[in-house]
Amino acid sequence: MDLTALAQSAKKSAIRLAAVNTEHKNSALKAVAQALRNNVVEIVRANEQDIEKAKDEKIPLALLKRLKFDESKINDVCDGIEDLIKLDDPVGKTLYAMQMDKGLEVYKVSCPIGVIGVVFESRPDALVQISMLCLKSGNACLLKGGIEAANTNNILAEIIHDSSIKAGLPENWIQLLQTRADVQAMLSLDKFIDLLIPRGSNQFVRFIMDNTNIPVLGHADGICHVYVDNQADIDMAVKITVDSKTQYVAVCNAAETLLVHKDIAEKFLPVIKTTLHAKGIELRGCEKTRKIIDIKPADEIDWRTEYLAEILSIRTVDSLDEAIDHINTYGSHHTDTIVTQSRTAAAEFLQLVDSANVLLNASTRFSDGYRYGLGAEVGISTSKIHARGPVGLEGLVIYKWKLIGSGQIVADYCGPDAKQFTHKKLKKEFRL
Amino acid sequence: MDLTALAQSAKKSAIRLAAVNTEHKNSALKAVAQALRNNVVEIVRANEQDIEKAKDEKIPLALLKRLKFDESKINDVCDGIEDLIKLDDPVGKTLYAMQMDKGLEVYKVSCPIGVIGVVFESRPDALVQISMLCLKSGNACLLKGGIEAANTNNILAEIIHDSSIKAGLPENWIQLLQTRADVQAMLSLDKFIDLLIPRGSNQFVRFIMDNTNIPVLGHADGICHVYVDNQADIDMAVKITVDSKTQYVAVCNAAETLLVHKDIAEKFLPVIKTTLHAKGIELRGCEKTRKIIDIKPADEIDWRTEYLAEILSIRTVDSLDEAIDHINTYGSHHTDTIVTQSRTAAAEFLQLVDSANVLLNASTRFSDGYRYGLGAEVGISTSKIHARGPVGLEGLVIYKWKLIGSGQIVADYCGPDAKQFTHKKLKKEFRL
Repeated sequence: MDLTALAQSAKKSAIRLAAVNTEHKNSALKAVAQALRNNVVEIVRANEQDIEKAKDEKIPLALLKRLKFDESKINDVCDGIEDLIKLDDPVGKTLYAMQMDKGLEVYKVSCPIGVIGVVFESRPDALVQISMLCLKSGNACLLKGGIEAANTNNILAEIIHDSSIKAGLPENWIQLLQTRADVQAMLSLDKFIDLLIPRGSNQFVRFIMDNTNIPVLGHADGICHVYVDNQADIDMAVKITVDSKTQYVAVCNAAETLLVHKDIAEKFLPVIKTTLHAKGIELRGCEKTRKIIDIKPADEIDWRTEYLAEILSIRTVDSLDEAIDHINTYGSHHTDTIVTQSRTAAAEFLQLVDSANVLLNASTRFSDGYRYGLGAEVGISTSKIHARGPVGLEGLVIYKWKLIGSGQIVADYCGPDAKQFTHKKLKKEFRL
Repeated sequence: MDLTALAQSAKKSAIRLAAVNTEHKNSALKAVAQALRNNVVEIVRANEQDIEKAKDEKIPLALLKRLKFDESKINDVCDGIEDLIKLDDPVGKTLYAMQMDKGLEVYKVSCPIGVIGVVFESRPDALVQISMLCLKSGNACLLKGGIEAANTNNILAEIIHDSSIKAGLPENWIQLLQTRADVQAMLSLDKFIDLLIPRGSNQFVRFIMDNTNIPVLGHADGICHVYVDNQADIDMAVKITVDSKTQYVAVCNAAETLLVHKDIAEKFLPVIKTTLHAKGIELRGCEKTRKIIDIKPADEIDWRTEYLAEILSIRTVDSLDEAIDHINTYGSHHTDTIVTQSRTAAAEFLQLVDSANVLLNASTRFSDGYRYGLGAEVGISTSKIHARGPVGLEGLVIYKWKLIGSGQIVADYCGPDAKQFTHKKLKKEFRL
């Protein structure tokens, strides 16, 4: 099958998958986890072939590490599937119910989006995780993985497809693009793919976002800020800055820039310098900052950089407004936190900072679906529509309007003798 | 100001507008309605200049009609604004509240999207309607109208801007693009525009959708279907078909194709032919249909055509499945109705037809925001994410995650002595 035919068959399958009930989807999830556990040896063997080839091709060590999919990683993804079974089905929820007139009712009912395109770099666990989130939410998926993981991806997609079909799911609900066509070809399939989820480096996600008309769920950069207000508790500000920067430097919700109010800078900056230097963090500061502590200079490029490394840029600001302005100008609208004891300053920051996650007196590292209690995380989105911030299963559903009439026509509701709509909100679930 | 500078200033203004409270927004709406009513003479004069010019340039009559903006139309849009004031503010609603731990709470709170790009053809009422929906929902807007309505659009944008600023809204929240740059330039402003709403012909909307990375709220075609099941009540099927096709032929939710189950075709087709011919509707049928009634032939192109005219294509199908398949293949995922007395057939149709609006025993013409009781309609969307079908004010908002901590850091929730998240759902509104 060529790419278009594959996508077309996924679309057809999506229609059937949308009608599969919760119990049935859960037993398919269970069957997939079981099949993956039963085939550990074969999966590891396929993965070793990819690793061998990657080593021959002198692929960087970091990539090799992500490519590796051993028994422990297989167990992890299977545990994840079993957690997913316990979650509420996001499909079939009545979001609005209105009596338009007697015997004429309209309902807004959640349903799957359709076909999700998943584009991922080396990590084979991404294939399993996202396809299982799609299954739980009733979406078909078209997967496009990196060529370096071809053997691993092939066997994983085959096991998932076969075990879920045996459990009664419609054929072709999950498909791995096998063609030589590059990602670009997939990005033009906007007739068949309703949403793209890219998983990979910033550059990779940015490339996807810039090269498709298909909506993308995700984020490229995570340029997160800690703002230490003039009314901050200094000990708390140090604790939160250190955690936001150092608790895990390579992730999107780690802080990259520290903003400090000028009235607290003389007290705060020397303490944070000592503490962060002791943790091996390189500091770069604006002119005002460097008048107080002796660190390397920071420039425009620093404000726009997601280091994902042991570096923090520092800017001293004259006011809360200047801090907010800096964040809205240079940030990536991901996660920003204010440290302050002032309720007014906090309220203004949370209101005016245009980011998916705005925090008061807490580390930026908290912005995460599991920590927020969503149960499963599809990804973190910096989009301004559909889903923003940590996205749970509800990001993979949309809704349909279902209208139940008994022969009504619009002509009867027009003209001089027009019947009137009753427009009475109903408190009931859709049922037919 | 050049286009980018304009867009940038709208973005800045959007941040401030998002913080304006309901009362304040409502008084701005009131001020705009009053100012429009006070300036009827000037608006009509500007509009007459556009009309004169359009006549000189021999612009088609239909376009001229849409261009006209007289006292009665001005009164209509002002009545619309006054209705809008009465509606609930979609901003500031708490959609999720979770205790992560003691003194660590996260809230999902609705907020404006940001900057809405509005691109419209001739109709000046679209400028007023959409900008007022933006105001009510706290969104800034960048307007791009057709050159043929330049005088009318200028005076309208000026009145709206000045009266709302006087009522205390942030400057530049509404801006009319005055540059000679074509629509294309606006479509590339994805750094500043968060959502596009196009208003105009199918071709116009399709062009916008195909030429931008910015999400688009709208629909190009409305290829809607009536399916008459073998278990339909024939009188009801006739009534619904007639209303769906003829009640208003030029709108997106009018029916373009009639699908008839073969087992009812011999009874139903002759009746519907007589009835629709009497109403001046041209019929085009598939081979099977033409064996029963003598009408013009229909081909593949007919199934894919939105006539918006007194034409209906008819196809006789062997089964409910074939009908569903036809709709999912040729339709535009807008509005489709089934006429049947069978609950099973109805349930299958409503489940498997992949359209924004799926109806049972009712005219396709019902799919409309006002009729559904939404109060105001931003548009009808055939997108699969964010908003689908008739979109009310809630389509112009998204949400922000607001986290209130008291000094917590993630490091304390990791490792051997990790604190545990409580993850207790809260039943309260966000408040700081």
